[in-house]
Amino acid sequence: MSTDFHQKSVSLFSEQLVDKGIDLNQLVSQVSGFQIAVPSWALGAGGTRFGRFSIGGEPRNLEEKLDDIGLLAKLSKRTDAVSLHIPWDIPQDVQAIRDKASNLGISFDAMNSNTFQDYGQPLSYKMGSLSNANAAIRKQAVEHNLQVIEIGKTLGSKGLTVWLADGSNFPGQAHFRNALQGTTESLQEIYAGMPEDWKLLLEYKPYEPNFYHTVIPDWGTSALICRQLGERAKVLVDLGHHLPNTNIEQIVATLMHQDMLAGFHFNDSKFGDDDLSTGSIKPYQLFLIFCELIGGAMDGAQAWESISWMIDASHNTKDPIEDLIQALESISQAYAKALLVDRVKLTQCQLDGDVVLAQEILQDAFLTDVRALVREARIQSGGEADPLAFYRKEKIREKLIAKRGKNAQASGL
Amino acid sequence: MSTDFHQKSVSLFSEQLVDKGIDLNQLVSQVSGFQIAVPSWALGAGGTRFGRFSIGGEPRNLEEKLDDIGLLAKLSKRTDAVSLHIPWDIPQDVQAIRDKASNLGISFDAMNSNTFQDYGQPLSYKMGSLSNANAAIRKQAVEHNLQVIEIGKTLGSKGLTVWLADGSNFPGQAHFRNALQGTTESLQEIYAGMPEDWKLLLEYKPYEPNFYHTVIPDWGTSALICRQLGERAKVLVDLGHHLPNTNIEQIVATLMHQDMLAGFHFNDSKFGDDDLSTGSIKPYQLFLIFCELIGGAMDGAQAWESISWMIDASHNTKDPIEDLIQALESISQAYAKALLVDRVKLTQCQLDGDVVLAQEILQDAFLTDVRALVREARIQSGGEADPLAFYRKEKIREKLIAKRGKNAQASGL
Amino acid sequence: MSTDFHQKSVSLFSEQLVDKGIDLNQLVSQVSGFQIAVPSWALGAGGTRFGRFSIGGEPRNLEEKLDDIGLLAKLSKRTDAVSLHIPWDIPQDVQAIRDKASNLGISFDAMNSNTFQDYGQPLSYKMGSLSNANAAIRKQAVEHNLQVIEIGKTLGSKGLTVWLADGSNFPGQAHFRNALQGTTESLQEIYAGMPEDWKLLLEYKPYEPNFYHTVIPDWGTSALICRQLGERAKVLVDLGHHLPNTNIEQIVATLMHQDMLAGFHFNDSKFGDDDLSTGSIKPYQLFLIFCELIGGAMDGAQAWESISWMIDASHNTKDPIEDLIQALESISQAYAKALLVDRVKLTQCQLDGDVVLAQEILQDAFLTDVRALVREARIQSGGEADPLAFYRKEKIREKLIAKRGKNAQASGL
Amino acid sequence: MSTDFHQKSVSLFSEQLVDKGIDLNQLVSQVSGFQIAVPSWALGAGGTRFGRFSIGGEPRNLEEKLDDIGLLAKLSKRTDAVSLHIPWDIPQDVQAIRDKASNLGISFDAMNSNTFQDYGQPLSYKMGSLSNANAAIRKQAVEHNLQVIEIGKTLGSKGLTVWLADGSNFPGQAHFRNALQGTTESLQEIYAGMPEDWKLLLEYKPYEPNFYHTVIPDWGTSALICRQLGERAKVLVDLGHHLPNTNIEQIVATLMHQDMLAGFHFNDSKFGDDDLSTGSIKPYQLFLIFCELIGGAMDGAQAWESISWMIDASHNTKDPIEDLIQALESISQAYAKALLVDRVKLTQCQLDGDVVLAQEILQDAFLTDVRALVREARIQSGGEADPLAFYRKEKIREKLIAKRGKNAQASGL
Repeated sequence: MSTDFHQKSVSLFSEQLVDKGIDLNQLVSQVSGFQIAVPSWALGAGGTRFGRFSIGGEPRNLEEKLDDIGLLAKLSKRTDAVSLHIPWDIPQDVQAIRDKASNLGISFDAMNSNTFQDYGQPLSYKMGSLSNANAAIRKQAVEHNLQVIEIGKTLGSKGLTVWLADGSNFPGQAHFRNALQGTTESLQEIYAGMPEDWKLLLEYKPYEPNFYHTVIPDWGTSALICRQLGERAKVLVDLGHHLPNTNIEQIVATLMHQDMLAGFHFNDSKFGDDDLSTGSIKPYQLFLIFCELIGGAMDGAQAWESISWMIDASHNTKDPIEDLIQALESISQAYAKALLVDRVKLTQCQLDGDVVLAQEILQDAFLTDVRALVREARIQSGGEADPLAFYRKEKIREKLIAKRGKNAQASGL
Repeated sequence: MSTDFHQKSVSLFSEQLVDKGIDLNQLVSQVSGFQIAVPSWALGAGGTRFGRFSIGGEPRNLEEKLDDIGLLAKLSKRTDAVSLHIPWDIPQDVQAIRDKASNLGISFDAMNSNTFQDYGQPLSYKMGSLSNANAAIRKQAVEHNLQVIEIGKTLGSKGLTVWLADGSNFPGQAHFRNALQGTTESLQEIYAGMPEDWKLLLEYKPYEPNFYHTVIPDWGTSALICRQLGERAKVLVDLGHHLPNTNIEQIVATLMHQDMLAGFHFNDSKFGDDDLSTGSIKPYQLFLIFCELIGGAMDGAQAWESISWMIDASHNTKDPIEDLIQALESISQAYAKALLVDRVKLTQCQLDGDVVLAQEILQDAFLTDVRALVREARIQSGGEADPLAFYRKEKIREKLIAKRGKNAQASGL
Repeated sequence: MSTDFHQKSVSLFSEQLVDKGIDLNQLVSQVSGFQIAVPSWALGAGGTRFGRFSIGGEPRNLEEKLDDIGLLAKLSKRTDAVSLHIPWDIPQDVQAIRDKASNLGISFDAMNSNTFQDYGQPLSYKMGSLSNANAAIRKQAVEHNLQVIEIGKTLGSKGLTVWLADGSNFPGQAHFRNALQGTTESLQEIYAGMPEDWKLLLEYKPYEPNFYHTVIPDWGTSALICRQLGERAKVLVDLGHHLPNTNIEQIVATLMHQDMLAGFHFNDSKFGDDDLSTGSIKPYQLFLIFCELIGGAMDGAQAWESISWMIDASHNTKDPIEDLIQALESISQAYAKALLVDRVKLTQCQLDGDVVLAQEILQDAFLTDVRALVREARIQSGGEADPLAFYRKEKIREKLIAKRGKNAQASGL
Repeated sequence: MSTDFHQKSVSLFSEQLVDKGIDLNQLVSQVSGFQIAVPSWALGAGGTRFGRFSIGGEPRNLEEKLDDIGLLAKLSKRTDAVSLHIPWDIPQDVQAIRDKASNLGISFDAMNSNTFQDYGQPLSYKMGSLSNANAAIRKQAVEHNLQVIEIGKTLGSKGLTVWLADGSNFPGQAHFRNALQGTTESLQEIYAGMPEDWKLLLEYKPYEPNFYHTVIPDWGTSALICRQLGERAKVLVDLGHHLPNTNIEQIVATLMHQDMLAGFHFNDSKFGDDDLSTGSIKPYQLFLIFCELIGGAMDGAQAWESISWMIDASHNTKDPIEDLIQALESISQAYAKALLVDRVKLTQCQLDGDVVLAQEILQDAFLTDVRALVREARIQSGGEADPLAFYRKEKIREKLIAKRGKNAQASGL
């Protein structure tokens, strides 16, 4: 990609904006300002129940995870926060971690608790945690979440993300209503333990690791619980947590209609999985989601600033840093394209029942090549024109392997 | 089926009840008391967009539809109500219709409105009805519903079922949030027009006849609207209106947990369709749904009497009356089996985390052959031991064809 | 779209081709040469089982259908053939129809038979046609297909497309193996009746209008039958005829690997439907399909010329001609983008296991804005720069309504 | 379950057989003779990518696995073979293992190879094995399979099951046709290395652990490869390896129609998973599958004896031995019920187009309580009347834990 070609592309792109009454600098500013958090577990190779293939040079501790995210931030200028997972990322020296993060320009996004695994705690989560029929286990799980909040407070985090794996594998195993009630009460205790400037982000997922029923399977159940918690509890949408064919962009709109959208976990999927790189399978869906997000914010349904953004994918056939560079780029493109939608005309089409033109308007935005815009925004922010090319040219993975070892393995999924 | 074998079967069945502390007469009484409404459109052959194959002798008007349901009631003793669809079933002489129904032991279940077709009304529903971007069309659709309520009042109905086909086929066509808001406001007007002893049953459906988005796609959206209407608005579950793999029994439990279950439209499906005979594809799912219903009522989550029951299926490869006989039998069996579940033991398994035994308890009930019980209940109520055999032996379809004609075609879907 | 902007866009686009060693004129020529047939039933408003909303001015007979396709050909330069459906399109005066088509530059693509409806033939297809348990019905259905071939011969068609709706709605209704065997034998008779320069295109579809089982549900079954027919029988892929999440592009590759791909029916779907405009829901999937098509042809797996192309979609919320303009444009774009894939580099990535770069290569092609290229090809071919804008500016639908009437209704689905 | 009640149940059951012209002893003999193999990996707790919960007392080596299967055989009398997985179950002392198995009445079913994990072999399977773009990796994977055959020969096994995890996670990663061709050639080498009295059982699976494409995703691809191998290569059906809504019973019929059904891996699933206990979710589907199996064998499509049977499920919330007891019971019930179908009447219904009666005939068999029959068959074979009750009464798991330890962990999935 020559500088000359980039300039010509930006120039032609900006010509297209005139008709739409959009200002290039405004667009650049919006794209530059859109930052997406990265979870600490995305920096190691993920795996499946059939095995895991190491990448080499994976970060061995929280410090090294911060290093990787710092690098990612420097190259891409699209991320400025990390989302930690407890117990995988308990900081040993809080001040040192805070200083390190601060130096790297990284803040601490929502904290993640873990009550889906046994890692030495007294009571097993085999039959559930916040929903467990056994009150002592529910209590243990609540206390774990309260500890996660405490750790987060020391780091400056402002939110707690709860993904609840609780559910059942066979009919009869769980009492649906009691499990839902127990979960609600457990979350009420957790909510009560959050500082007043925190929010609780409650995920839903229809299946896995439980394969007959999940306590919070859909947005409706998550919203039902959140309403019983308080206004700082909202629904988190993970793109990979839906039944086949679900219209996710509509769910986004429905949540914003209620001011109930906590934020996103970005990834992609083809078969109900949730770990493929964002935008790698269904880029048009991603664009349509951003159309709803922008529309909802413009209409005043829910404030843009109230929504959290995070990538949540960690597959095992890509270098994690390269994977994240691709994901950040795809998300930025989808956002940029959605900013190009001519909303005045679209609204008129909807009033006129002009289905054909409405489609044309959306596709006009989607078909526009926004790569020059995204690149320009990155360059203006001080990032690399082509982060992936830079990463490879500088042989960064090779250097990480040399430093951390071939078999260094990050904790997490 | 000899009388002798029936008696032996009842006898062996009742032996099984002893251990469970269940009384046979109590069971017979419960099964006898469980009545399921039949919609007027189920008495003609349905069809697909690819065509329709006539059955012959279909009821040509509301009077003949009542005749068919009266016959069904007499043979099966499992139905005592009809659910009318307006404009297909507008009674010409209300008193005559009431008298006829009364003589047949048939009452009028919830009324059904139709704003998914154009049938001569001034404004087209092509771009939606209660959700339409055009206020005049919304108004027309509201008024249609109010008229349906008026008709229902004259017949003694106590409810209005709203199935809303509104949605869109292409991204951009509809404004999700506005459509949801418009629908809510339209329904508020309709709700305000209902008598105080009526309830509003609000369906959801993820797709068809719109194939990109449906305004009320899932239980969560239906419940969201109902909460804004009032406590007599509840969510109607149609078994065929779910995305692939949905855990419907959990939705039932979640709705009862909120006292939000309006009732059921029974049918079955394999591929996301909604017109196969109830119990013909997934009988175990039907049983699990009844387990939740009975459990929810026993626990006091929602009163059994507050739930409405209706069949909604009209496929075109079966004689509709035979189809309904089979459906009523399958539903009765599922209900009867669910009554056999040993709930004390099941609860203990759930507390103990005894997944294996919990499964055994449910399957013990499901595997029990309850046909003798259902038959006994029918005989004691004055119905036919074997309604289908009777129907065929008496050559009833042949007689209907002779009377009504080979090409008589019922209105409806 | 100003001419100046178009020229600048073409110029910038062609700059991008240099690195890839692609010649602009070659590309233009490929895009211009890619022609997609239109079925006669796509020119009227389709509908669902819940109703149909008229468009107005629909073609009332075969002549008017040809007029509409002629118009479409003139504007878009992307179609040059019509696919007829019998009995909907039986020509009364063959020579006149041939002359008319010839004057419009339209040839006759594969013929379509209909054994899924009753339209006055002696025996009903209610329980199936080519698969029917009754030999007389199978014979009738075979003879219908032979008649369709005869009609096609008079028009110069060179193929017969068989979409078989046969199947069953309930377990037990059909004998799977007998139905498959009967179908194979019926098709052998039809195949034997085809001229030697014809091909038989055999569709598969997992469900609808039968909802428990379809005799030819998947590509494997279609290929199994084709192998028993002869080498001129191949598998037709309709994009909307797959189970949720199916990897269609892989099926295309697998069929080409066997030289077994007959061709395509283009449309799009979100929920297992098959009538949405091509490219309106999953444009990336459409691109990936073209990547396989081009790759398969380049590698010599199957000759490009042996593959047939047709649109098969007729939804009822768009003007059909506008819908087809959009579909032709989307297909052309997908094809053009797939031509941009750097196959040498991609192959190297596959050998190297470089998953990240392989994705980059595909996305680089997909993200490129090819609208200028497609427009340029159309202009050079003598078509309209913007067919949709032209169609609206010229008020063609209004003229058609004036001529044919508001309630003119085309035959077909 | 009292002996008296069992006798009465058997007696009433046998009365039902008279009308159908079925002999009780014949039935008992058929049920007794139906034996299902157990894989070595089903004896430990499985897990998900989110973790694994130990059962305690899991078998620590092949000898202990044989002990567990011997116990299962003794209690249930429904299994007499084990299916080994290499490298997890490499026997150290072949003769000792053969003797032990022989003493327990256990033979060696098909062998399973593993090329989906890295376990110390020189070249990684991260980018595939039999399909790998790298010939050296394909060769290594072929040789592994040949070694598995050698081990199997020493044990008296007569088959090799190949489940190929190969595929890709992202578009572009794999070359579909080359991967298919490479796989076919690799399997040809393996097939050539099999003794002449062995068969090759080739699985298919649409996704997992690869989430964009699997090299052998469906029965059609598996059959395509098998045809190129030879007549001793056939398609293995794993119930959990299908896209949503797939009609699996039809696939069974289609394979038998071609004499291409290798056998089964039994399990159940709700969301596309493949590890739930057989019959726990969709018991009617399991029954319908057995209807096809029995019908196909009776009609001479494919010999019953040519089909292999195995359980393949290992979830982690049940004691594996209890899980297997439940699975064996469910499979036996489904088989027994399918034997009750009145095939003469069913065939007549299919000829008559009597859909209603066809459904009645299948459901009559399914609704019949066959537990007494299955129990009687087990008792007559010398097994326990109630294996699960016996296992618990004898506190077998507690004894295994005492002997093997709380944290003993079986190898495998």
